[in-house]
Amino acid sequence: MTEPNDKTKSSRRNFLVGAAGLVAGAAAPPALAANSKNLPPNVADWTHQLGDGVGVRAYGNPSKYEKDVVRRTVPWLTATPESSVSFTPLHQLDGIITPNGLCFERHHGGIAEIDPNDYRLMLHGLVDKPLLFTLEDLKRLPRVNRIHFLECAANSGMEWRGAQLNGCQYTHGMVHCVQYTGVPLKFLLEQAGVKAKATWIMAEGGDSAAMNRSIPMSKALDDCLVAYRMNGEMLRPEQGYPVRLVVPGWEGNVWVKWLRRLKVGDQPWYTREETAKYTDLLENGKARKFTFEMDAKSVITSPSPQAPLHQKGFTVISGLAWSGRGKVARVDVSLDGGRNWRAARIDGPVFDKACVRFYADIEWNGEELMLQSRVMDEAGYVQPTKDALRKIRGVNSIYHNNGIATWALKANGEVENVEVG
Amino acid sequence: MTEPNDKTKSSRRNFLVGAAGLVAGAAAPPALAANSKNLPPNVADWTHQLGDGVGVRAYGNPSKYEKDVVRRTVPWLTATPESSVSFTPLHQLDGIITPNGLCFERHHGGIAEIDPNDYRLMLHGLVDKPLLFTLEDLKRLPRVNRIHFLECAANSGMEWRGAQLNGCQYTHGMVHCVQYTGVPLKFLLEQAGVKAKATWIMAEGGDSAAMNRSIPMSKALDDCLVAYRMNGEMLRPEQGYPVRLVVPGWEGNVWVKWLRRLKVGDQPWYTREETAKYTDLLENGKARKFTFEMDAKSVITSPSPQAPLHQKGFTVISGLAWSGRGKVARVDVSLDGGRNWRAARIDGPVFDKACVRFYADIEWNGEELMLQSRVMDEAGYVQPTKDALRKIRGVNSIYHNNGIATWALKANGEVENVEVG
Repeated sequence: MTEPNDKTKSSRRNFLVGAAGLVAGAAAPPALAANSKNLPPNVADWTHQLGDGVGVRAYGNPSKYEKDVVRRTVPWLTATPESSVSFTPLHQLDGIITPNGLCFERHHGGIAEIDPNDYRLMLHGLVDKPLLFTLEDLKRLPRVNRIHFLECAANSGMEWRGAQLNGCQYTHGMVHCVQYTGVPLKFLLEQAGVKAKATWIMAEGGDSAAMNRSIPMSKALDDCLVAYRMNGEMLRPEQGYPVRLVVPGWEGNVWVKWLRRLKVGDQPWYTREETAKYTDLLENGKARKFTFEMDAKSVITSPSPQAPLHQKGFTVISGLAWSGRGKVARVDVSLDGGRNWRAARIDGPVFDKACVRFYADIEWNGEELMLQSRVMDEAGYVQPTKDALRKIRGVNSIYHNNGIATWALKANGEVENVEVG
Repeated sequence: MTEPNDKTKSSRRNFLVGAAGLVAGAAAPPALAANSKNLPPNVADWTHQLGDGVGVRAYGNPSKYEKDVVRRTVPWLTATPESSVSFTPLHQLDGIITPNGLCFERHHGGIAEIDPNDYRLMLHGLVDKPLLFTLEDLKRLPRVNRIHFLECAANSGMEWRGAQLNGCQYTHGMVHCVQYTGVPLKFLLEQAGVKAKATWIMAEGGDSAAMNRSIPMSKALDDCLVAYRMNGEMLRPEQGYPVRLVVPGWEGNVWVKWLRRLKVGDQPWYTREETAKYTDLLENGKARKFTFEMDAKSVITSPSPQAPLHQKGFTVISGLAWSGRGKVARVDVSLDGGRNWRAARIDGPVFDKACVRFYADIEWNGEELMLQSRVMDEAGYVQPTKDALRKIRGVNSIYHNNGIATWALKANGEVENVEVG
């Protein structure tokens, strides 16, 4: 064989024939099936030409060829662009870290634009010493770094009454996972001195919605953070710049953004966002309240409706799993709609209340499959089917749907979001 | 006390007085010293006004208030913008994950712009079956996710002859740490079938420099990845889009970007980049070659020359440590230029060949300090002083300077890059 950078035309042609034969040969590994695009790597234009000089991209961006890897909205979903949501393109990502620019957004009053020099956080209520913090104050305090998932309570909410949207970006894309840096809320509460009868804390945002939620003191003293960084840099504006609450494992709306004050009390406040919203309406008309914890959930991100298969042969099923109760213990994958299961391979670190990445290798020869994933967490909780969930909860709520999703893989490689039995 | 969102002027003024007194009081925690900026959080403009609607930021960017958190260049350092380098603003980051947009860059021929549809990777040389991969081929193969640091061999290179540049962005900013997703190189080599006599592999880039390096087969079969993702999304153009080699713990130039081919052989190729460059010239005129491994290193990122202290009192010293030999075992901090040391607190996960974040709490009352950090890795290697390094290596090379840095903290809070004894 000859090398592809030889300058003679004949030798280059020889390599092409040789390589194509090898790649298409019966002895080739399963992943390297015949592929008409397997042309030899002639010296390409990008090697002949001097590349772009550095210096203009002080803050870098993705390749222009990745312009379709973006957060997307569902225009009919909310009444105004200020009370809206965008979805993370889970089907186009891998690993467990979400890049900051692709973390989904959910706003109740648009993105507040806060001048960090004028930012203040007040801690008051049932405390010995009310405290007021500038951003610089917070940055001088002892801090920790934690990788956690953040999921909106309404993620998969449109799936309660049956498969609605054809893409895991829309059905599951209100989840992301980054490393937060922040001050343990416990530390701030200790500085202020929480009075003995205090049992709840209210977090309020500085946005136009003044978004606020009540949180039990036990959680506030456990693992909550007053965070100002994500993936190393300062929070993005749409994620609460300059400061948000991190409430690991709990529904996203209690992770109050643009955090303005924390009030300590002896009962919940029953704010609009925990009465009219973010309660789970059951069949009998009663509503479950304070359903903070995000139950264990998983989704196959590829193949999926927006990420069809383009060829037969060896393929890796890839997905994400997480649990608000602690660590993911195990993920199973089914190819037949839940009749048979096999353990998936969890790759990479497994953190408390963080996403894990799972993989399952398959050899696909064009057969129709019903792909499912099912997670079990360290508490022993197993992700239920949607039907099992509906039997208990009915279909009146849009929140806390962690049922098993089903992707129908068709003979042509296309994938559809479907319901099974 | 009254609440700050009460509408009467008098009650608001009362709170201000109360809060200021409390914050400035002797019983206040050390971090909350008197601060004239500790005004109460009156309802701010951003709460009165509807925020920006979502939808236009398909791919998000940092706040406009963070516009100075950028990669920076040193214009006189390289002859042309195409053969250049930018530096990560370490002093403005925390945690261990570097956002993709702030990962330092080093190019030998500019940023190649590669169409992913035309991308090919060839694996050839001393193998049973030469193989050719499209990007889609690679994406179908079994993959893993690993968090690793990447450091340029020339990081801190300007410090050999004494403190040169006043800022850890410039003295240490050629290091970053992200999660990579890629195919183990071992898997690809097994598919091709490496011949018994093969001992080296050559990686070549598809950029105009055709950057290439020889790597021992033992490393190739150990932990190298053919990676196409960083922090979940596809590699950035300046980091080798669509495919780069990941060579954990080894100097950055062997992590060949825009990876075009891998050739298996029975001896190193002695390419330009491992003879004229990337060898370490000793005092006696001999050059150390194939100095791949990055020795353990650490740096205090805050306070540092670009991140001075603005007030006295409680402060957290923050820094990064890493080792090319494995995990970081311990980090010590000195306030007196290396005479006395105390253990720093390592916070967050400790991965193999990855950055760790360390902290040390201090109460600073305006005294002049000589801040140093010193890392020990799991192999027992201890980061040396610059002088100890110079005794062994001389000052002719610009590579592999992992000596202890010293920041002189002055009475006014300013910090200077200095040399000590």
